[in-house]
Amino acid sequence: MATKFMSMRNLRFLLYEVFDLASLTRHDYYREYDRKMLDMVLQAASELAERLLWPSFQEMDRNPPELADDTVKVHPLVKTMLKEFGSGGWIATTVPETLNGQQLPHLVSDACQFIFSSANYSASAYPGLSDGAARLIENFGSKVLYDAYVPKMRNGQWQGTMALTEPEAGSSLSDITTTGEPTDQGYYKIRGQKIFISAGDHDAVENVVHLMLAKITGAPAGAKGISLFVVPKRRTSEEGALVPNDVVTSGIFHKLGYRGCPITQLSIGDKDDCRGYLVGKPHQGLMYMFQMMNEARIGVGMGATAIATAAYYASLEYAKTRKQGRKVSEKDPTQPQVSIIEHPDVKRMLLFQRAVVEGSLSLLLQCSKYADLHKVGSGDEKERCALLLDLLTPVAKTYPSEMGILSISQGLQCFGGSGYCDDYPLEQYYRDARIHPIHEGTTGIHGIDLLGRKVLMKNGKASEFYLVEVRAAVVEAMKFPNLEAHARELSDALDKLTRVTSHLVGISQHKGPEHFLADATLYLELFGIISIAWQWLLQAIAVQKAFERGLPSGERSFYEGKFYAFRYFFGYELPKIEGLVKRLMNTDGLTVEMEEDFFHD
Amino acid sequence: MATKFMSMRNLRFLLYEVFDLASLTRHDYYREYDRKMLDMVLQAASELAERLLWPSFQEMDRNPPELADDTVKVHPLVKTMLKEFGSGGWIATTVPETLNGQQLPHLVSDACQFIFSSANYSASAYPGLSDGAARLIENFGSKVLYDAYVPKMRNGQWQGTMALTEPEAGSSLSDITTTGEPTDQGYYKIRGQKIFISAGDHDAVENVVHLMLAKITGAPAGAKGISLFVVPKRRTSEEGALVPNDVVTSGIFHKLGYRGCPITQLSIGDKDDCRGYLVGKPHQGLMYMFQMMNEARIGVGMGATAIATAAYYASLEYAKTRKQGRKVSEKDPTQPQVSIIEHPDVKRMLLFQRAVVEGSLSLLLQCSKYADLHKVGSGDEKERCALLLDLLTPVAKTYPSEMGILSISQGLQCFGGSGYCDDYPLEQYYRDARIHPIHEGTTGIHGIDLLGRKVLMKNGKASEFYLVEVRAAVVEAMKFPNLEAHARELSDALDKLTRVTSHLVGISQHKGPEHFLADATLYLELFGIISIAWQWLLQAIAVQKAFERGLPSGERSFYEGKFYAFRYFFGYELPKIEGLVKRLMNTDGLTVEMEEDFFHD
Repeated sequence: MATKFMSMRNLRFLLYEVFDLASLTRHDYYREYDRKMLDMVLQAASELAERLLWPSFQEMDRNPPELADDTVKVHPLVKTMLKEFGSGGWIATTVPETLNGQQLPHLVSDACQFIFSSANYSASAYPGLSDGAARLIENFGSKVLYDAYVPKMRNGQWQGTMALTEPEAGSSLSDITTTGEPTDQGYYKIRGQKIFISAGDHDAVENVVHLMLAKITGAPAGAKGISLFVVPKRRTSEEGALVPNDVVTSGIFHKLGYRGCPITQLSIGDKDDCRGYLVGKPHQGLMYMFQMMNEARIGVGMGATAIATAAYYASLEYAKTRKQGRKVSEKDPTQPQVSIIEHPDVKRMLLFQRAVVEGSLSLLLQCSKYADLHKVGSGDEKERCALLLDLLTPVAKTYPSEMGILSISQGLQCFGGSGYCDDYPLEQYYRDARIHPIHEGTTGIHGIDLLGRKVLMKNGKASEFYLVEVRAAVVEAMKFPNLEAHARELSDALDKLTRVTSHLVGISQHKGPEHFLADATLYLELFGIISIAWQWLLQAIAVQKAFERGLPSGERSFYEGKFYAFRYFFGYELPKIEGLVKRLMNTDGLTVEMEEDFFHD
Repeated sequence: MATKFMSMRNLRFLLYEVFDLASLTRHDYYREYDRKMLDMVLQAASELAERLLWPSFQEMDRNPPELADDTVKVHPLVKTMLKEFGSGGWIATTVPETLNGQQLPHLVSDACQFIFSSANYSASAYPGLSDGAARLIENFGSKVLYDAYVPKMRNGQWQGTMALTEPEAGSSLSDITTTGEPTDQGYYKIRGQKIFISAGDHDAVENVVHLMLAKITGAPAGAKGISLFVVPKRRTSEEGALVPNDVVTSGIFHKLGYRGCPITQLSIGDKDDCRGYLVGKPHQGLMYMFQMMNEARIGVGMGATAIATAAYYASLEYAKTRKQGRKVSEKDPTQPQVSIIEHPDVKRMLLFQRAVVEGSLSLLLQCSKYADLHKVGSGDEKERCALLLDLLTPVAKTYPSEMGILSISQGLQCFGGSGYCDDYPLEQYYRDARIHPIHEGTTGIHGIDLLGRKVLMKNGKASEFYLVEVRAAVVEAMKFPNLEAHARELSDALDKLTRVTSHLVGISQHKGPEHFLADATLYLELFGIISIAWQWLLQAIAVQKAFERGLPSGERSFYEGKFYAFRYFFGYELPKIEGLVKRLMNTDGLTVEMEEDFFHD
């Protein structure tokens, strides 16, 4: 096994030097914190990850959940973890103190999530789901619902889930058929089927609380008729005991990876005895759920980044110790073999990984910072941050997910044949990570979300804010002679993005939405590369500032390495936009016009 | 499970319309065959694959080999298959009739291998390895060795292997430490360790015959001291009985995929009683083995293509039947959901797969044709084909392997969450395929092979032949108005390739081999894309010819689809060379200069 799964040094660099976390504590809402306390929080998360989560990383994969006697048995760590996370306040990191939370900045909370997920992604999913589900009740539910459910979800006694997908309604959520029939008892009778419900049932908690989408009898068709319900596995009887609520786990899925967390199929109300409790108003469920989904999407990007980070450090460790071959200039076979990290192609694979994972993490923390500024800001600034977060959500979900897979694949490649075998963790990372382009909206869905909705929303206001943000980085970078050329490249890339966007908007007007959105996935890819280049430029500025202020000798290699990774991204990754731009300007309607029959044979 | 794993229609198109298989039968060596007989061979292979291999595809993955009581137990299919393949002549397809072989063209033999591998890659590896190992003895071994081993390997009684890799010698084969100590009995005493030996031991055969690399005591250091030995698991005693030959399976590896075939670790000569028999001359082993390796490399490309082909058909079937969502222009949620194949993004994913797998298969069969023309040709033509085959081997190994993974990943993506679960075969294809960029030389090794050796060999003669071949296709395509623009694009791409090559050769002269080869992997990627574009142009020419001669109505959709896939490749894949060219012209030495210490944290 590898010995390291993330870098606290890099995390501190991003939080303090790139995103100026300390400045947040000047806001009233975060005034209780100072740098020392925030460091302690990060350190505590790191220790918890190392002591509790990391040791079971492989074991949870090898011993996946089993469904037996109507019970989903999970690894013993889950119970210990939920208890410890609950009592330690880790399921309430961003909750206000007034609701017994930690009131931490999102920047720190998301950094902690990153730490946990890099140690053990499957394990980290459980508390993350409870947190998101609890927040839905907090934000939209009644006091009665809050009191009945939230404290036990936040202390780790009960599990929270998001229960959306059905056999015939995955990407097309508006087609759900689960129903809620009103009663005069204040609850609804729920009936339906849900699939792919993460942590949807398990024996580490005494209850599972589903935040479930369903349609109230007689509701309008489509998305406008969807409501949100709390549907617990067990409900509280009049005597105060927990009794079954007719939510039955009818199966669990056997997955490629992410095996430490059960994904369940639920049969709800088969005995006509399932009670659901409406959250907020009828027919507003999808809007409420989008709060959780948007957080979950950032969480998916973070999970992907975390797994790819752990894979990077495992392959780095291997590359430093594994000896194989000699420099190509060395023709004497009696000379000793060298560590493979000395081969330029291996360094290329390592730099690729570093450029992807540290660039992704940076973009995700950029989103966290927008979330914080949205929370503590006011007026225009509040709106600006909300719009930027909205615009970047599909990007921050997708780039890390898609590129994380490729990054891990290169990590596996560094191991050669050993990477394909389970003596090393890479094959597991490779399996675990493949879920990310799928769950919380597939890549295709996010492409359409970005191009079809986000880029144009409010007359393109979010896009304009984005261009302003990136151009500001370009202008600042121009002050450093070392960065001038790169700044110009990013500026050119922005121009290309703008040109592509205008071109596609023209297509939309002339040829309609099918042609407009046909290559939305590639547009998202283009947007992603440029966004990561922006983040690397921000990091490079921080590096130059560090060099200017002078560095203790032990610190130099970190910044030198950062600068190489930055140059790698601009030298190897940013050029990929050339092909994408060429393609996106060629709107020949190929995929619209291709007929199903032509796929015959 | 999917119902289709390959397309005989596409195979016939490539064999007869693109590569004019029928013309080969005009050569004396292949005169026994006519189109009807060749069709029968293909049909027989297809039936064998469907009846015997396909039904166990999933089962062999779920029940991988186990090592117990010194025996590697494999799935019962292996025994049945080897027996049936042996008696049917399938382990001797290209062997001359004089040696009791089928004397089939490589084009047909490789097509059959493709069929078998697409039905069940793991299963197809066993006879493939026996075939290659037997050929080494045929070509380089003595009559005594031939008689003792080859007939039983070719009739399926015994298994053949290639035993190269050792714990400290993977990519760097010259560092093997297995030794052969001469005796006065005519055999050598072998001692050493081998790892990652495919089909290196199993209970479906009575003997395993390793074609093993080792160094004779006192041999020169490095590659020049490597000899090739036959090292059987059991040797024949003086009484004619099979007795143990001190080759012990000390372990099997647990792999991400390709689980139907055991990969073993062998301890050889621990009791000082392992006899090995020299093949050919001392110290010529690596040269001999390269024959098997080159065939195996083409075989790896074919295996990758086959798996990706099966994945493509599985995802196509799913996309045609799975209903989800509506056209983006349809706002009425009460309208029924459509098959996902109607969504342009899904068609894009399907076209990507088709473009990759049919382009890869075409390049591989192009190599088969060069192998045939090399075999039956003479003089300059013989040399030309040998050089082209040599040049294209790293490309035909790598493009299908690297792109096959991405193709399968897009296939998995078509399934959404179901692709991540083992109710569908995609997750297995995804695991199975990841071995290909690793075994038989990693992608990095092949990049160096192409740029550092093949492109420049014989003063660039192979490269010149290649340019002539591709330009000939460009010239022919120019005759069809429909293809003119594409032909020009390929011609431009060739110019870019030539420019990049010259630039890199300049770097080699000015900065030495490290800088020259630093981005060899990307050069290989560039070369690969251009080669596949060439193959697609050849296919498009065949399509145009078919349209010109007129088509029965039932045939039209196949050719229409072909043409869309061709346009897809030129519209979406060929533009990727822009970024690669930009990178390759930027030889900043980044990965040479990056210091190991900079990877610190």
